[in-house]
Amino acid sequence: MPQTPHIEKHFTGKDRVRDIVIGMSDGLTVPFALAAGLTGAVAQTGVIVTAGLAEIAAGSIAMGLGGYLAARSDAEHYASERQRERGEVRDRPEVEAAEVAQVFQEYGLSEEESAPVVQALVRRPEAWIDFMMRFELGLEKPDPQRALVSALTIAFAYIVGGMIPLTPYIVFRQTRPALAASVLATLVALWIFGYGKGRFTGIAPARSAFQTTLIGGLAAGAAFAIARLVS
Amino acid sequence: MPQTPHIEKHFTGKDRVRDIVIGMSDGLTVPFALAAGLTGAVAQTGVIVTAGLAEIAAGSIAMGLGGYLAARSDAEHYASERQRERGEVRDRPEVEAAEVAQVFQEYGLSEEESAPVVQALVRRPEAWIDFMMRFELGLEKPDPQRALVSALTIAFAYIVGGMIPLTPYIVFRQTRPALAASVLATLVALWIFGYGKGRFTGIAPARSAFQTTLIGGLAAGAAFAIARLVS
Repeated sequence: MPQTPHIEKHFTGKDRVRDIVIGMSDGLTVPFALAAGLTGAVAQTGVIVTAGLAEIAAGSIAMGLGGYLAARSDAEHYASERQRERGEVRDRPEVEAAEVAQVFQEYGLSEEESAPVVQALVRRPEAWIDFMMRFELGLEKPDPQRALVSALTIAFAYIVGGMIPLTPYIVFRQTRPALAASVLATLVALWIFGYGKGRFTGIAPARSAFQTTLIGGLAAGAAFAIARLVS
Repeated sequence: MPQTPHIEKHFTGKDRVRDIVIGMSDGLTVPFALAAGLTGAVAQTGVIVTAGLAEIAAGSIAMGLGGYLAARSDAEHYASERQRERGEVRDRPEVEAAEVAQVFQEYGLSEEESAPVVQALVRRPEAWIDFMMRFELGLEKPDPQRALVSALTIAFAYIVGGMIPLTPYIVFRQTRPALAASVLATLVALWIFGYGKGRFTGIAPARSAFQTTLIGGLAAGAAFAIARLVS
């Protein structure tokens, strides 16, 4: 099954935005929550910075490399399904023609009504295969160049996002002022990021900003409470 | 734009598997890498357990709640696009009819060949709207019940995955044996998980197992190296 998010065609020009959103959502949230959580349990900012940097390294690699391999798998999945579809169109054209008619039947069309389109596709095998890939299987042709660019964009966005909550712990030597500055900087960043994300994804910006900030705040609060409980 | 991964229709019964894969991939990788990384820098297992539990709390909430809101946004996006499409079909039927013909033109069909299907859809406005949603916009009708189940599944899988690398740090009082047991348990878990994931997603299981283990290992190695460098 496809492992990368499906984007409708008139948005493919915004793949880069999508990757930045994926990386930065988690980058702003998880290192922020981890640092806030540790502040409730650890006295030295040094340990928090170490844990935060380790988390950013792990998270950016896991998300970037994971995204790269998922995109490669999708491309291979598409190629192998297309191969299979080509074989079926060649070996059992009557079955495949019936499947085309069936796609239209789901929309209440009779066999007579869909027959001209079915016949026209049967005359153009390559277009027929493309049609089946999209309309029977719901698969979009993946861009082979995207996997690497996507992986690097996601990883970079994660690092940028993660450094915002962590920088105060590098600047301040005491955990309390570091926590205050980190919470303030990150909530502002989450709000701006959520607002921008809303504008790009078609959700009301103010609502997206609120939701994004809420997730970050809840995650940080839960991490803080749990770290307090166990330490 | 849709924010949840697109699954082709004959896989929708396996949504639960997809959610487990999403949660467990990150759950096995990031807490593992964080714990391994901190072992290179911190002498007490207590700090590592605290950081690990804080990370699991933050990660499961960020992924679960993030998935919930993304699924809800997708459902609203679908509803608002369908509303728009309904208005266009009502107010500008000739433009929409031309757009149906255009979908078929991409597959090399002439207007004469697609005309019977276009006319049949024009006679059935509801089916016409559904057809445009799927074939013009590439949007699948989302299941309104799924958002909550999906969020809880992802969060639970993240917690289960994260407890595997962390448990040795709870059991052992010294960091070195804890690290050894954590690395062993997690690499075995990553291998089994990657193998199972391959079987469900159609990638060769051995290759999927190798890739999944590699990502976890690289993330943990990088976290370890960075924690060593800064501490």
